Amino acid sequence: MFTLSPGPSQISPETKEDIRRAIEEGVLEISHRSSRFTEISRRCIEELRAYLGVPSEYRVFYFDSATQVWHSLAANLVERNSFHFINGSFSQKAKEASALLGKNAASTEVPWGEQCDFTATEIPRAAELVTVCYNETSTGVKMTQEELVALRRHVSEAFLAVDITSCAGGVPLSMPEADVWYFSVQKCFGLPAGLGVAIISPRAYERSIALQRAGKNLAGIWSWEKLDEMMSGEKYQTPQTPNVLNIHLLGLQCERWNRAGGLSKHIVTTAQKKALVETWMRDRDGCAFFVQDDAHRSDTVFTIGAAPEAIDNAKKALRERGIELGAGYGRIKRDTFRIANFPAITEEMLSEALEVLSEHFHR
Amino acid sequence: MFTLSPGPSQISPETKEDIRRAIEEGVLEISHRSSRFTEISRRCIEELRAYLGVPSEYRVFYFDSATQVWHSLAANLVERNSFHFINGSFSQKAKEASALLGKNAASTEVPWGEQCDFTATEIPRAAELVTVCYNETSTGVKMTQEELVALRRHVSEAFLAVDITSCAGGVPLSMPEADVWYFSVQKCFGLPAGLGVAIISPRAYERSIALQRAGKNLAGIWSWEKLDEMMSGEKYQTPQTPNVLNIHLLGLQCERWNRAGGLSKHIVTTAQKKALVETWMRDRDGCAFFVQDDAHRSDTVFTIGAAPEAIDNAKKALRERGIELGAGYGRIKRDTFRIANFPAITEEMLSEALEVLSEHFHR
Repeated sequence: MFTLSPGPSQISPETKEDIRRAIEEGVLEISHRSSRFTEISRRCIEELRAYLGVPSEYRVFYFDSATQVWHSLAANLVERNSFHFINGSFSQKAKEASALLGKNAASTEVPWGEQCDFTATEIPRAAELVTVCYNETSTGVKMTQEELVALRRHVSEAFLAVDITSCAGGVPLSMPEADVWYFSVQKCFGLPAGLGVAIISPRAYERSIALQRAGKNLAGIWSWEKLDEMMSGEKYQTPQTPNVLNIHLLGLQCERWNRAGGLSKHIVTTAQKKALVETWMRDRDGCAFFVQDDAHRSDTVFTIGAAPEAIDNAKKALRERGIELGAGYGRIKRDTFRIANFPAITEEMLSEALEVLSEHFHR
Repeated sequence: MFTLSPGPSQISPETKEDIRRAIEEGVLEISHRSSRFTEISRRCIEELRAYLGVPSEYRVFYFDSATQVWHSLAANLVERNSFHFINGSFSQKAKEASALLGKNAASTEVPWGEQCDFTATEIPRAAELVTVCYNETSTGVKMTQEELVALRRHVSEAFLAVDITSCAGGVPLSMPEADVWYFSVQKCFGLPAGLGVAIISPRAYERSIALQRAGKNLAGIWSWEKLDEMMSGEKYQTPQTPNVLNIHLLGLQCERWNRAGGLSKHIVTTAQKKALVETWMRDRDGCAFFVQDDAHRSDTVFTIGAAPEAIDNAKKALRERGIELGAGYGRIKRDTFRIANFPAITEEMLSEALEVLSEHFHR
């Protein structure tokens, strides 16, 4: 039994064992103000930094979800104006978070399945924050590294925040190119839902402090200064009682991965598994990649279009084999299905699923 | 091995088994937009409502912690002025949350270990929100039911929010007497940390909507209207990918408890275990309840003062027997220890711990 849904997603046997052991070792019962928690959290932050290649001067904070980070960005970085590149549901939500805090949130939008032309877009000079989604989980459209580098130059002085929810941990990302990176752990990291992470540049952090001094930071007790007070100085803590189990699991996951080849290894296996699915898709009848442009097709979330009835039949057949297909999202819910390509989803799992799908989508 | 710490706290064998079973049943991998999640969340909300006696017209929303609710109260209910009764660390933090959002947060404060005189306190007429902590986890001071009823009349038109973090689930609470009740699940509910709950009256909900229409609600995507959009109409969902495991566990816990006598049963066992500790404390040398007034001594968190060295020795002896004593909190960290009296902590556990403590604190 396994799931190909892009989140919450498949959890590896190792993590399931980590949870069982955490129960036995009393991890669920330790105080979040104890030295034992500090050690657990220190491992999490340090191993995560090593795994993702986080520059040492960037801060790392825990959130409960990437959704919480959308709010945090607008509250900590924006006095008046933000700008948002929209190409699906999740990039849209970053704009909503800003608008709902009373900010002037401008945007550009392209049809679902397409990617924005980043440098051809005029960004208002007043924009303090620019958001992009590196990997749109709703559509399966990704940015390229070249686009991000070019966008970094194009946004000039504004802060650039990159949503990496459904690709962090599976693809290469050059952290110095942006001010804020954020994700949640129920995607590539293959953990239970309930934990998000934001990685924040010194420049963005300073801006949040400046807004606070000016009485214009709307994050309240969740201001980055407050988070830093609890995290810095080797404290590794949080204002609230956090999701201790997930912090423990994320640390163990990154530690295990770092010992076994790190992100590089997963970049290679991600590409191999993507090639497997692309080969299967070639000349396939009755279904097609929703993202037609190869260069912008996600490495970690494949969105495949087909007739609703065919999708229902395929889902049913897979379910009989104990395999859960990822549902389409939002306005393309009925017309697409999704296959996650996360580290916990093995080549064997994908092959098994594709074999069943071959009975429904012929060559 | 067990812990007497007031949170994160002892987890019962039943909940540990619930987690193991959840792993096997794939609960960690289900989509938070699936009908299976809706069923899990529906059970959680309905069983929790039944267990706590939540009036049907009150809304119930998930948060990641009670800390998040402090922010949510100030953001959703306060345009300008709030008022806070302070008698320890956590009641203080409710004020900070309001002040950090730029509100005019007034307060009254009594020394740690004492309770406020609620009706003798003049509450500014402009106060829109009044907060109290029903059970101060830092000091072990509680409110009485009579005080809450009298305070409800005294606050007049203001919204009354009651922090029940470390007593919800163990003591009787008359929900119609206040506008907002909130707690987190790592205390009496005996679950892993990472989930908070707020229970909100229709009147308070309407106020949050009115502030939003006026552009003065600072909760952004976390406004109660947004939470209600996802929760109402039998959706039982959340804007973000929530802590699915904890929602599952809370539902199972409440269901199990409701079948076995409900809150009434726990009120009785809580009182029995409190009597056990109080009897042990009588004429005890070298330690004394931090809260001297019997009427305000918490039923669920006992704070006991002693010499720092004696506490260290007792902690060490207990640890050798596999028992973790709760540490003191904040400014009384060195001079007190705490014993939680939550449902997962049995009479046998308390007796075992008291036996060891008897070797350090004689009669």
